[in-house]
Amino acid sequence: MNEYIYKCFNCDKEFSSTEIERNFIYLCPDCGKAEKNKPLNGVLQVIYDYDSIKNEISREEFLNFNPGQIKSYPQLLPLKNPLDEEKLARIKFPQSPLTTVIIENNSVQVFDDTKNPTLSYKDRASLLTVLKADELRCSDIAAASTGNAASSLAGICAALGLTSRVFVPKNIPKSKLLQIQTYGSEVYLVDGDYDEAFDLCLEIASSKKWYNRNTAYNPITIEGKKSAAFDLFIAGKGDLPEYIFVPVGDGVIISGMYKGFWELKQLGWIDEFPKLIAMQATGSDALVRFIETDEFTYKAASTIADSISAGAPRNLYMAASAVKNTNGRGIRISDENILKAQSNIARNTGILVEPSCAVSYAGFRTMMEEGSIDSSDKCLLMLTGNGLKDPDALRNSNKKLNPKTPTDWKNELLNE
Amino acid sequence: MNEYIYKCFNCDKEFSSTEIERNFIYLCPDCGKAEKNKPLNGVLQVIYDYDSIKNEISREEFLNFNPGQIKSYPQLLPLKNPLDEEKLARIKFPQSPLTTVIIENNSVQVFDDTKNPTLSYKDRASLLTVLKADELRCSDIAAASTGNAASSLAGICAALGLTSRVFVPKNIPKSKLLQIQTYGSEVYLVDGDYDEAFDLCLEIASSKKWYNRNTAYNPITIEGKKSAAFDLFIAGKGDLPEYIFVPVGDGVIISGMYKGFWELKQLGWIDEFPKLIAMQATGSDALVRFIETDEFTYKAASTIADSISAGAPRNLYMAASAVKNTNGRGIRISDENILKAQSNIARNTGILVEPSCAVSYAGFRTMMEEGSIDSSDKCLLMLTGNGLKDPDALRNSNKKLNPKTPTDWKNELLNE
Repeated sequence: MNEYIYKCFNCDKEFSSTEIERNFIYLCPDCGKAEKNKPLNGVLQVIYDYDSIKNEISREEFLNFNPGQIKSYPQLLPLKNPLDEEKLARIKFPQSPLTTVIIENNSVQVFDDTKNPTLSYKDRASLLTVLKADELRCSDIAAASTGNAASSLAGICAALGLTSRVFVPKNIPKSKLLQIQTYGSEVYLVDGDYDEAFDLCLEIASSKKWYNRNTAYNPITIEGKKSAAFDLFIAGKGDLPEYIFVPVGDGVIISGMYKGFWELKQLGWIDEFPKLIAMQATGSDALVRFIETDEFTYKAASTIADSISAGAPRNLYMAASAVKNTNGRGIRISDENILKAQSNIARNTGILVEPSCAVSYAGFRTMMEEGSIDSSDKCLLMLTGNGLKDPDALRNSNKKLNPKTPTDWKNELLNE
Repeated sequence: MNEYIYKCFNCDKEFSSTEIERNFIYLCPDCGKAEKNKPLNGVLQVIYDYDSIKNEISREEFLNFNPGQIKSYPQLLPLKNPLDEEKLARIKFPQSPLTTVIIENNSVQVFDDTKNPTLSYKDRASLLTVLKADELRCSDIAAASTGNAASSLAGICAALGLTSRVFVPKNIPKSKLLQIQTYGSEVYLVDGDYDEAFDLCLEIASSKKWYNRNTAYNPITIEGKKSAAFDLFIAGKGDLPEYIFVPVGDGVIISGMYKGFWELKQLGWIDEFPKLIAMQATGSDALVRFIETDEFTYKAASTIADSISAGAPRNLYMAASAVKNTNGRGIRISDENILKAQSNIARNTGILVEPSCAVSYAGFRTMMEEGSIDSSDKCLLMLTGNGLKDPDALRNSNKKLNPKTPTDWKNELLNE
C-alpha cells in the first residue's frame, strides 16, 4: 500500500490520507475556503515518503521508463489499490511528446499534449481523478467547467465506464457542449458564469455524494498534472529545459508541473528547476497582477483564449509560488498576438493548437525580442490543447485569409 | 539505394521507378486514364524485391520494431535517398494504436488513427508523398480534396517546410476549410464538385510542375497507407485479426492495407489474410454495388459521412480485389445508423470519431446481429478520423440530446 499524506498549502497542517479521502474532504479541514470570485484557500498537496522512494527506485531506472505511462511509478501516485493495467491500457498518452521545431527561424522545443485522449492536457488530471473515484467506489464524478476539463472528464469516464456529471454556464460555446454531450455526459446548464457553476457543483456533488473533480479544489487534479514534468524528464533523458512557457488560467498546470519538478528534486534526481514562465492573456492576467503587486484583486476575465480565462484563478497562490521558486516570471499577451502565435505555430510546425496555448510561443517571442533570452537558451513551449476543440477561434484567426476564388486564381496562375 | 518497380494494376505492365518518377508519371503510361465520374484506370503499384528483403530482415526483427515508425523498414518504402531522421522526428504517429474496448457489451479491438498528426489516417499517405516530393526536389505539392486529405497535406507540409496547394469545391464545409487554411495552405476554390476539383488539380499541377498527391492517382498514397497493416502486425506481435472493418470512400485505405498484408505474405511472415470488410454509407455505395454486380455505374454520392462520400471511387478496382482476395465482403450503413454508431463508440470508449469511420462499428454490429460472426471471432475496427474534424456531424448526432436546463435539473435532483 502506497504511503502519503495531505498537507495544506496555506497553513502547512498535515492530514492522513485516510482521513481526507474516506470523508471526501477536498480543501484543508482547518483553513479551507471556496469563496465566489476568489482563489481557493487551503488547497491540499499530496506528500510522499521521498526517502523511501529513493531506496526503491533509482534515477536511471526512472529515466528508462516510457513517457505517458503513469503505471511506471505507482510510488508517486496517490492511489492505494494496485493499478488495473487492463483499464489503464484504454487511456493512451503520446509516448514521444517532445519535439524540436523551427518557428519563424527560431529552433525551440515543444511538449505536445494536443494528441491526448480528448486532445488536451486536462486528461492528465481527469485520468488520475477517475482512478481515485473508482478506488473510492464512486461511480459518478462531477465537475464545473467551461469546456476542456468537462470534455476530458466526459471522455475518460466514457473509456472507464463511470458517469460524468458536468455543470456548465448556459452560454457555453456550442462546440464545447457538443464534445461533452457526445461522450454521454450528464450536462447541467447553470444560470450564470463559471463561478456560479463551480459553487453549484460543490453543493450538488456533496449532497449527491458524487466525487468532485473541480480543478485545484480536488488535490488529485494537481497530482495528475505533475505527470508532464516526469514525461519531460524522461523524454529529455534527464536533461531539462532552462525555460518552460506555461499557459495559465486557474493555475493548476503550472502548479502540477512545479510539483513534479519539486519531487524530482526531493528525490535528488535534479539540481535546478527550469524557470516557469506563466503565460496569460492581457484580458485574464490575475496571476501576473498578483506576481507584480502581491495582492489579489478580482477582475472579470475576457479573452479569446477561453481555456485560460479565469478572473479568480482557483490555484493562484500555488501557481505564484511555482513561478517564484523557479525564478520565473509572468507575461501578458494580447488577443491579437495570441491569434498570430496560433497561426505561426500551425504554419511552421503542422501542430494545430488552441489559442490558450499559443500564448506559450508568444511569450517565447516576447523574451527573444526583449533580449532576455537568446538562441543559446534551452526553451520549451507547453502545447496544452488541440485547435480543433475551438473552431470559433480558428474562424477569428483566419478572418483575413480569403481563399482564392476561381476567377482570382485562374487569372493569377495563367498570367505568371 | 532501394530497388523497386512500378506495375500497372490493370494491364500488369512493369516500369522502372526511375522512368516513372523522373518524368512525373502517375498512372500507367500504357492504359492509364483519369475520366470524370469514373474510377481511375491504370493505377500503379510499387513492387519491391521481396526475396532480397527476406534475406535482409527477419520476421522477429520486424516484430521488434515500434508501431508508427516507418524509418524502421526503409526496404519497404518507395524512397531512394536515405531518410532524414531529423525531419521524420517532427511527424509522430501513435506508438500504441491497438486497444481492446467494450462497446455495448461486445469486446472488440480498435485501431485508433484519430490521434495522428492532423488527426486522420490520411497522414500516412501525406507523409510518404511529401517525403517523395522532397526527394524529387519539388517544393510545391497539390491535391484535390473535400477535406481530410487536404488538411493532412497542409499539416504535413507545414511541419516539413513545403508548400501545399489545395483544390477544393467552393461549397466545402467551412470548418474543413479553416483547418486547411490555418496550416497556411494555398487554397483554390473550384466552381464545381470534387470531380471537377480533381481534374483541375491534374491540369494545373502538371502545367506548374507541382507534385501531385491526388489520392490513388499518385501510387505513393497507397504505399503510405499500407503502414497501418505493418503497425497492426507489429502491435499484435504477429497475431492478426480475422475480420477488419474498413471505411471505404475512394478505396485507398482498404487497398493500402491489403498491399501491406500482401507484402507480409510475400515475405512469408503471415499465412492468411484478415478478411477485409468494406464499409460504405448507403448513399455512397459504389464499391458494394461493384462487388455485387461486377459493374461500375456512377451515382452521385450523398451521405453525412463526407470523408467516405465518393460517387466514383478512384481506386475502385484495387479495393474490390482487396475484398475478394481476402474473402471479405461489402456492407452498407444508413446515415441514421452511422450517427448512432458514432455516439456508441464515443460513449463506450471515450474515442470521438468522425461519422466516416463509425461505419466500421456499425458493420461489426450488423454481422453480429446476422450471426455471421460471434464473440469468438477476432474483429478489428479501423478508426480513421477524429470527430472534432467535423463539428457539423456532431451537431446532427446530438440533435436529440437537450442538456438539462436549470429548472429541469433542479426539480429532478431535489425530488429524487
